[in-house]
Amino acid sequence: MTLPPLAPDTLDRLRRISTPTLTTQLFKAGFRNAFLAGVRPLCPDRRMAGEAVTVRFAPAREDRAGYEVLADPNYPQRHAIENIQAGQVLVMDCRGVGTAANAGDILVSRLQVRGAAGLVLDGGIRDYPSVQMFGFPVYALGPAAPAHVVRHVAVDENVPIGCAEVLVMPGDIMVGDGEGVVCIPRAVADKVATHGLEQEELEAFILEKIRAGAPLPGTYPPNEQTLAEYETWKRRRGTI
Amino acid sequence: MTLPPLAPDTLDRLRRISTPTLTTQLFKAGFRNAFLAGVRPLCPDRRMAGEAVTVRFAPAREDRAGYEVLADPNYPQRHAIENIQAGQVLVMDCRGVGTAANAGDILVSRLQVRGAAGLVLDGGIRDYPSVQMFGFPVYALGPAAPAHVVRHVAVDENVPIGCAEVLVMPGDIMVGDGEGVVCIPRAVADKVATHGLEQEELEAFILEKIRAGAPLPGTYPPNEQTLAEYETWKRRRGTI
Amino acid sequence: MTLPPLAPDTLDRLRRISTPTLTTQLFKAGFRNAFLAGVRPLCPDRRMAGEAVTVRFAPAREDRAGYEVLADPNYPQRHAIENIQAGQVLVMDCRGVGTAANAGDILVSRLQVRGAAGLVLDGGIRDYPSVQMFGFPVYALGPAAPAHVVRHVAVDENVPIGCAEVLVMPGDIMVGDGEGVVCIPRAVADKVATHGLEQEELEAFILEKIRAGAPLPGTYPPNEQTLAEYETWKRRRGTI
Amino acid sequence: MTLPPLAPDTLDRLRRISTPTLTTQLFKAGFRNAFLAGVRPLCPDRRMAGEAVTVRFAPAREDRAGYEVLADPNYPQRHAIENIQAGQVLVMDCRGVGTAANAGDILVSRLQVRGAAGLVLDGGIRDYPSVQMFGFPVYALGPAAPAHVVRHVAVDENVPIGCAEVLVMPGDIMVGDGEGVVCIPRAVADKVATHGLEQEELEAFILEKIRAGAPLPGTYPPNEQTLAEYETWKRRRGTI
Amino acid sequence: MTLPPLAPDTLDRLRRISTPTLTTQLFKAGFRNAFLAGVRPLCPDRRMAGEAVTVRFAPAREDRAGYEVLADPNYPQRHAIENIQAGQVLVMDCRGVGTAANAGDILVSRLQVRGAAGLVLDGGIRDYPSVQMFGFPVYALGPAAPAHVVRHVAVDENVPIGCAEVLVMPGDIMVGDGEGVVCIPRAVADKVATHGLEQEELEAFILEKIRAGAPLPGTYPPNEQTLAEYETWKRRRGTI
Amino acid sequence: MTLPPLAPDTLDRLRRISTPTLTTQLFKAGFRNAFLAGVRPLCPDRRMAGEAVTVRFAPAREDRAGYEVLADPNYPQRHAIENIQAGQVLVMDCRGVGTAANAGDILVSRLQVRGAAGLVLDGGIRDYPSVQMFGFPVYALGPAAPAHVVRHVAVDENVPIGCAEVLVMPGDIMVGDGEGVVCIPRAVADKVATHGLEQEELEAFILEKIRAGAPLPGTYPPNEQTLAEYETWKRRRGTI
Repeated sequence: MTLPPLAPDTLDRLRRISTPTLTTQLFKAGFRNAFLAGVRPLCPDRRMAGEAVTVRFAPAREDRAGYEVLADPNYPQRHAIENIQAGQVLVMDCRGVGTAANAGDILVSRLQVRGAAGLVLDGGIRDYPSVQMFGFPVYALGPAAPAHVVRHVAVDENVPIGCAEVLVMPGDIMVGDGEGVVCIPRAVADKVATHGLEQEELEAFILEKIRAGAPLPGTYPPNEQTLAEYETWKRRRGTI
Repeated sequence: MTLPPLAPDTLDRLRRISTPTLTTQLFKAGFRNAFLAGVRPLCPDRRMAGEAVTVRFAPAREDRAGYEVLADPNYPQRHAIENIQAGQVLVMDCRGVGTAANAGDILVSRLQVRGAAGLVLDGGIRDYPSVQMFGFPVYALGPAAPAHVVRHVAVDENVPIGCAEVLVMPGDIMVGDGEGVVCIPRAVADKVATHGLEQEELEAFILEKIRAGAPLPGTYPPNEQTLAEYETWKRRRGTI
Repeated sequence: MTLPPLAPDTLDRLRRISTPTLTTQLFKAGFRNAFLAGVRPLCPDRRMAGEAVTVRFAPAREDRAGYEVLADPNYPQRHAIENIQAGQVLVMDCRGVGTAANAGDILVSRLQVRGAAGLVLDGGIRDYPSVQMFGFPVYALGPAAPAHVVRHVAVDENVPIGCAEVLVMPGDIMVGDGEGVVCIPRAVADKVATHGLEQEELEAFILEKIRAGAPLPGTYPPNEQTLAEYETWKRRRGTI
Repeated sequence: MTLPPLAPDTLDRLRRISTPTLTTQLFKAGFRNAFLAGVRPLCPDRRMAGEAVTVRFAPAREDRAGYEVLADPNYPQRHAIENIQAGQVLVMDCRGVGTAANAGDILVSRLQVRGAAGLVLDGGIRDYPSVQMFGFPVYALGPAAPAHVVRHVAVDENVPIGCAEVLVMPGDIMVGDGEGVVCIPRAVADKVATHGLEQEELEAFILEKIRAGAPLPGTYPPNEQTLAEYETWKRRRGTI
Repeated sequence: MTLPPLAPDTLDRLRRISTPTLTTQLFKAGFRNAFLAGVRPLCPDRRMAGEAVTVRFAPAREDRAGYEVLADPNYPQRHAIENIQAGQVLVMDCRGVGTAANAGDILVSRLQVRGAAGLVLDGGIRDYPSVQMFGFPVYALGPAAPAHVVRHVAVDENVPIGCAEVLVMPGDIMVGDGEGVVCIPRAVADKVATHGLEQEELEAFILEKIRAGAPLPGTYPPNEQTLAEYETWKRRRGTI
Repeated sequence: MTLPPLAPDTLDRLRRISTPTLTTQLFKAGFRNAFLAGVRPLCPDRRMAGEAVTVRFAPAREDRAGYEVLADPNYPQRHAIENIQAGQVLVMDCRGVGTAANAGDILVSRLQVRGAAGLVLDGGIRDYPSVQMFGFPVYALGPAAPAHVVRHVAVDENVPIGCAEVLVMPGDIMVGDGEGVVCIPRAVADKVATHGLEQEELEAFILEKIRAGAPLPGTYPPNEQTLAEYETWKRRRGTI
């Protein structure tokens, strides 16, 4: 699968845009369901942006889910981690099960060593307190001690998946901040990056005005006069 | 994928065994999670047994889920129905969403005309009252008017799926009765069919005794004396 | 509040259209969330169409929810029933609580005597087995013996409400069949009624073809040739 | 444990009172939470009233929940059934798990043969279609094929339990009709039986008036004039 | 609506009483359901007490929920914020939906500038990490990036609402601490403030005794001797 | 009930093993469900290991759940706390209800003074911010202001219970760390303690290798060569 190219600075721009702003831009582009609700950062002060590669888990069954499968280098969970490219984000479809862990300190370390941009899953993380110390962007439902084999078996790599009830296609752009994760359909990533930065700047101006006592009407959303003031402010301040 | 053959009468036998008996046999074979909880028959008096073919749905997204995709003959939902073989059961992974419909009267009719053995999904059925009249084995979460595109997009055919939190592999055997559906891993289907029929007969004998006033201890589960009586009863009655 | 008029035959037409067809027409008109999921008919063979009047319930509190409030003729639950107009549908926002009853045989009888078109609620019904005998369109989450005061207090009449997570504005058109209930925004009711009947007829033709062995591709959705055949079929059959 | 005696006709009276009326009487006696929500009758046309005996289930564990435990005559599930007295109702605390079955056709038959008044559980029933034919009052969450050992182990008999989030003490009175089950604290059973029958008669009168066109205000709830009419009606009709 | 006056120091007192103590006092006054479960502080070290003003949200619909509605100064969400009085608490009925945000940094800043006492909602907050820095009492279900229009439309101001399944009447007193929020019916606020402070002092004494090794019986709850010791302790320590 | 003895250093060993490692050892010993999902530490940096004593709560009822019951020294909640032995862990079955508190600062202080090893419950804690300061191992669903009597009544002591859907038998070993709590069946505690420490050491070695750039295949899970390296590493490093 060859993916259409992104503009060279799109990932850098997206990394600087907050997830609330991204969801607003996606709403305006026709996408209402892009935020992975309930998926929370282990390192809230790290930002993340990168192309999605995916792993899919299905329900465990006694004949297929045991520790022995983990030694197979083609087991999708292990294979996807071992083959991730620098800058990519691994996204796992864990069917929203928070009571089992789809990765722990060793697997997250391998992702980090390989230069991955992050890990996103609608499942649990084990060794949670340790992984919080890694300074690596991990987004999950929360801590869970049991290994994934008590509930899941990995069955596929790099297919379209659902994660926290959001469609994630391989090659989509995952962006994370201290609030959570947004999936940006690849085809609109360049546009969202451009408009998103503009919105961030406008809202910084609006927030400044509101904190100085401006009323909501006319300020938020801004009317023409406020937009004109903004243009002046922006010129005075220099660009982003 | 070539599947290992089944014994010639396995499907016929399984169709005569109740789902409670099948779950007991599967428990004894090491499988604790085989019943598709919440998936209920539209025609409770039909029995079903057949090989699984699967379709997988992922969450809808505005750029991929609309009525226009349905005209593509390769759209997995439509392609799987159009290519089902006589005696197969179509199993759909609808992620447990009961508020949208993954099939209605027209698609179920096509399955019926093609000789499919049944339809199983952890999602909704539209035109539910009509489909109940078809005399065709359909098992679903319940009625739902909206077409699947409000919540889902079909993304795969004949891959391992979860359905009602049970793993279903293509080629597994789906058996349904008035209580619901069990998924039998293909490798144990012959054995389950044989032992299941024996259990059915033994429990018919035990039920007869209990209704005649026998106490539970010694009767259910049966001790050696009860098993000896059963052997006599069975010989007198002729075989299954 | 004066509501814009409906075309004279809109309600009659809507009553003849199935809820799956209505959700499809609403999807095409831009509305993805119109079906009241989980709200089921007590009389599945009755059809219902009428303008919504609404009652809103809030959580009970010991100082406001007791049997004594029911004697107040202005208590919204009682006042709305006593003042309903012939042909209207009473819709109650019960916050999705199925374990208490917002109406029983006496209140439903009063609605029926006054000529209401139906009752819709995302709550419970008490005296359920009796109400099922009334031949009156009631749609609810299921049976519940306790009166609403154990969980709710009625606080408003004829305001916008949520019912089963669908927005219902006073004056919207509620349509029900054996599958459930759809809320049609008043502004699109005429259009949905017209297009809906057309879709019903086309799908009757398609179902006939499918049951006669036609393949899905080209038939469902119909291509130009199938649409031409349909025109012929329709002329031969006479109009609706 | 010796239980305080009931008035001789209390059970007979309670069996004639609907569960909605019972919850109203209990509300007036200070009990807001007496209806076992979600627990539905398998034989909706049977009425049930009897003293509770209880069984408690805890989560299964591999070392304690297997088919072998069922042969122990002291296993609480089996022991309670084998020792139930005529007229008693067996109530099982299944922790609200609807996906496993805590009884099936054989155990229900044993209860029926022993003269039990009924079976109530917030769990599943297997052999559900057969048990529906028994004409025996069974109330459960729904059908489930797997035996209880996949989720539960029975750990206690005749202790206070929760069933569908309602406290049930051994000796409390369980009453069931087509709507569901109410648990009546033993200490108020006589009073509830007396007042409940009166309410049933009054509401029959009110329903008659409403169906004849009376308005809600003054009729329901009844004012003094309506109560006076009721007294006349009652005298004319003879007593209960 | 004119509200009955509060005693002059009631709000100051309530701000010093913990929410556990308040729920105990409310229980004793007959109110069992006053704590907004799941609604958590963004600034756990701030205390809050103030009169409720309310906003009600209903489910979004494509014809009513878009960014354009936000420019209307009468849109209830914006109007209520713009008109809040110093010392009031804005309470929003978000129907328990945690996956969309009903306010973010700009709206919270406007509340703060206007001198509001706090913001309480059973919904999400966007710009969550920033809002945590404001030192302003905000209580919500958690972070959520998407603006409220993906799930809600604001429909009413200053009506009775449910928030986290608790009834909130305009004018009720909302009190928050590091544990969460309690809604105190206005009519009992003075009494709860008085008795609550007394309970706080008594429990400080009891905690001191327990930490010094006193047994539970006689100490907690206190018997007459402990109460006598408490009176001595209180006199020695001076009053509150 | 006399419990089989533990090896003298089992508790000390278990206290040093992480809950993920313990769940892996239990999986290998045949136990798939040992982690108390959702039960989170108030003091994440404390470790806990001790024998379970249990308390069971049932649903509240107005005639049995009020503040007056708390004065009875035999009330199971109070009696169990007052009689706990040094080193024991009190485990409460709160039926997974997070919206009421089964303990607060005073009761936790009494446990701490008596030398208990910890408190575990699938319910809420009140005075949560204070209890977090105690440096005592408490594991709960989260903060909740209302006392338990709004939802529960304590009914039993030292019986088998469910806690967070895990069976806990009196005498089982509860181990907690910053991730959560595992229940170890007493019969396997010695073995799990021994093998668990070995696994901890091996995984420390593997993590070191992975962070140094080793690939997953052959390293995790380890092949024979890696295991040989580990033996060398272990000898060089000295024992645990």
